[in-house]
Amino acid sequence: MLLDMAAGFKRELSNENPSFEHSLRNKRIALVFFENSTRTRFSFEIAARNLGAGTLNFSASSSSVSKGESLSDTIKNLEAMQVDAFVLRHPSSGAADIVKAITSKNVINAGDGSHEHPTQALLDMFTLREYFGKIEGVKIVIIGDVLHSRVARSNIYGLLTAGAEVALCCPVTLMPPDADRLGVTLFTNLDRAIAWADTAIVLRLQLERATGGYLPSLGEYSVHYGLTDERLERMQKHLLVLHPGPINREIEISNHVADRIQPPGYSKSVLLEQVTNGVAIRMAVLKTLLMQ
Amino acid sequence: MLLDMAAGFKRELSNENPSFEHSLRNKRIALVFFENSTRTRFSFEIAARNLGAGTLNFSASSSSVSKGESLSDTIKNLEAMQVDAFVLRHPSSGAADIVKAITSKNVINAGDGSHEHPTQALLDMFTLREYFGKIEGVKIVIIGDVLHSRVARSNIYGLLTAGAEVALCCPVTLMPPDADRLGVTLFTNLDRAIAWADTAIVLRLQLERATGGYLPSLGEYSVHYGLTDERLERMQKHLLVLHPGPINREIEISNHVADRIQPPGYSKSVLLEQVTNGVAIRMAVLKTLLMQ
Amino acid sequence: MLLDMAAGFKRELSNENPSFEHSLRNKRIALVFFENSTRTRFSFEIAARNLGAGTLNFSASSSSVSKGESLSDTIKNLEAMQVDAFVLRHPSSGAADIVKAITSKNVINAGDGSHEHPTQALLDMFTLREYFGKIEGVKIVIIGDVLHSRVARSNIYGLLTAGAEVALCCPVTLMPPDADRLGVTLFTNLDRAIAWADTAIVLRLQLERATGGYLPSLGEYSVHYGLTDERLERMQKHLLVLHPGPINREIEISNHVADRIQPPGYSKSVLLEQVTNGVAIRMAVLKTLLMQ
Repeated sequence: MLLDMAAGFKRELSNENPSFEHSLRNKRIALVFFENSTRTRFSFEIAARNLGAGTLNFSASSSSVSKGESLSDTIKNLEAMQVDAFVLRHPSSGAADIVKAITSKNVINAGDGSHEHPTQALLDMFTLREYFGKIEGVKIVIIGDVLHSRVARSNIYGLLTAGAEVALCCPVTLMPPDADRLGVTLFTNLDRAIAWADTAIVLRLQLERATGGYLPSLGEYSVHYGLTDERLERMQKHLLVLHPGPINREIEISNHVADRIQPPGYSKSVLLEQVTNGVAIRMAVLKTLLMQ
Repeated sequence: MLLDMAAGFKRELSNENPSFEHSLRNKRIALVFFENSTRTRFSFEIAARNLGAGTLNFSASSSSVSKGESLSDTIKNLEAMQVDAFVLRHPSSGAADIVKAITSKNVINAGDGSHEHPTQALLDMFTLREYFGKIEGVKIVIIGDVLHSRVARSNIYGLLTAGAEVALCCPVTLMPPDADRLGVTLFTNLDRAIAWADTAIVLRLQLERATGGYLPSLGEYSVHYGLTDERLERMQKHLLVLHPGPINREIEISNHVADRIQPPGYSKSVLLEQVTNGVAIRMAVLKTLLMQ
Repeated sequence: MLLDMAAGFKRELSNENPSFEHSLRNKRIALVFFENSTRTRFSFEIAARNLGAGTLNFSASSSSVSKGESLSDTIKNLEAMQVDAFVLRHPSSGAADIVKAITSKNVINAGDGSHEHPTQALLDMFTLREYFGKIEGVKIVIIGDVLHSRVARSNIYGLLTAGAEVALCCPVTLMPPDADRLGVTLFTNLDRAIAWADTAIVLRLQLERATGGYLPSLGEYSVHYGLTDERLERMQKHLLVLHPGPINREIEISNHVADRIQPPGYSKSVLLEQVTNGVAIRMAVLKTLLMQ
């Protein structure tokens, strides 16, 4: 199973000089990023190289996309150069499906618009399983801009499938319209959500939401939905805290909560652990798809 | 010979897990691109790696060129770091000659302004020879903005040298002033050109030509010079179709013509085959130059 | 010692097909460049690969830094993906110290604001030792915008430590306020500085200084502080000339002086030799730090 394979990779990664079987030695993976990224792109690049695969870095800005070439034509051209898999990030929801429909090669969605970000969900599930020993029955609240979040969407599907209890917590303006049909608990009050939860996945707030009519102001969002020590102390609640990054410090998460990785205190942040786990998960995903 | 060496590489590329002798293992190739590119840059990068060479990606935007460093100084500095070959794309016609004059290393012109793009001509010749079994005597019409096209210029020289019959077809405003001294047939009427030809190399129309005084409008260009199924059916003419990419769909070439890779229909597109052939040709070019 | 190790690397680099022990085979080096660079970035990339290390190219523009992620968070995230060393270039003075304080990995300062650029100083020292056989007692004048120059600062410390005699020569507006406490000789007259010196390190003039109130005009700077053949001939002074690049031709250095690498003439330029030496020095730095 994928998470077990990732656990094996993570054990090796924790060595001083990790060494992996180069099981993808003759494979070539195109990293096709139409949006900026630090974590996801490097994570896939490192994962691919750990397995011996070659990587090609495609960014829209230095390619013929700037001359108006379509996504489909770009992919078909790269495919014609013998690429074994595409790792795609794109600002349009559904972009990965479009690519999947036109290529016989493997397509890995590394985030498409506000649709899905499946490897982020997998690494979050891996992180939760590592901490709680299981996912089934764990109470996870996803806090923030759920409406526009591909991380939230992928996590809801993944976590429910794995038997977790999932809740969403956000202002009504950021709640997806179909939220009541997702099989999740809904909160608009953060205190109640925290009282309910074992762990929180805090979402990045796209700062432009504040001026887009979704929020009265960043400051007000922060007061009502920011995860802070003050709130956790008042609630006397211990919480495991995840965040996909990049974080907006002192907006959706306080510095203390983001950076506290060990006691004492009411929260434990695994933000950087998630990043390490991301490499292991992406190694497992690449190996599983490309060794078929 | 170069095309035969490329044919060998192409056979190996068509395997599931192609494996090449790393004959350029200790060589380092700088990809120096002052213009955006998808096909050419990746093609050279993949070709170099297939042969075991290391590649360095130099792009003007993230380099000291943005501080005003000259092309010559940039090249001399890269050379001083022990680079074995330069693959150069530059917006100025003649840039490759300038670089060749100042370095003792190999220089491969990957497109210089509206001057030349020799490896594109080589891959087109390879593609034509693969399809027709020979180049000699094949009737090839180059359609579009010949005046500004480095692809056209390199193909005219290459194809005539190999014994092909070459024609140009374009509005008079896009015909090179020395066209009648090139040893080619000239058409301004696309129907007549198609009636004459065995195969067409359709050029990308730089969209800014429409506003530069060269064309009345894109729509009018498309009506008179766009390669469409309607035209081919009316002419009852079977045509092999090449295009260097990126294509402007429904301007110089219709979707049907661009995407039809097998019968039924009056045309056969080898646009993606050209891309695959580009890797093979560039492997042959790199090996020939660097194994000297 | 570092310079001796670099000398060994340089001997191997001068071979047709240099081959190095891959002593950093399992190491991964992140090249984190927040400013554009040609020489320094490629130099580190080539140095790392020569030793068998993997490299990751991080540039601010295509990363989450464009979403407002802090330097610290960027570094912590990269570290969580198992990076063994950071090579950092950043426009803020002190950036390397900030990074060093938050990571347990090796941090190599590749230029931080107007603070330090230690590997440039090392390669300059290597170049001087190669030419003079020693550094002790050599008279070196640093000419130009000393006030804002990280190259000058690192060279002053390094050269004085190695026993050289160091002078600065620049307009009073570009002299550091603490210049008289640095243990160096100060000149505002270039003729006097040249009469004193065995060798000159000419600094790049940031062209925006001319409009920043530091200089009356570029032309006037060039007349008074530009290193030209006319001046050297008038002084009848032989001078070894270094410059960290990129050069502003005909501003701080004339074409003749910049490009004359052998007699006859009153100067010998080692600008490109410095670039080659930069690879050797960075190999020595990486090996020394990462083999610990």
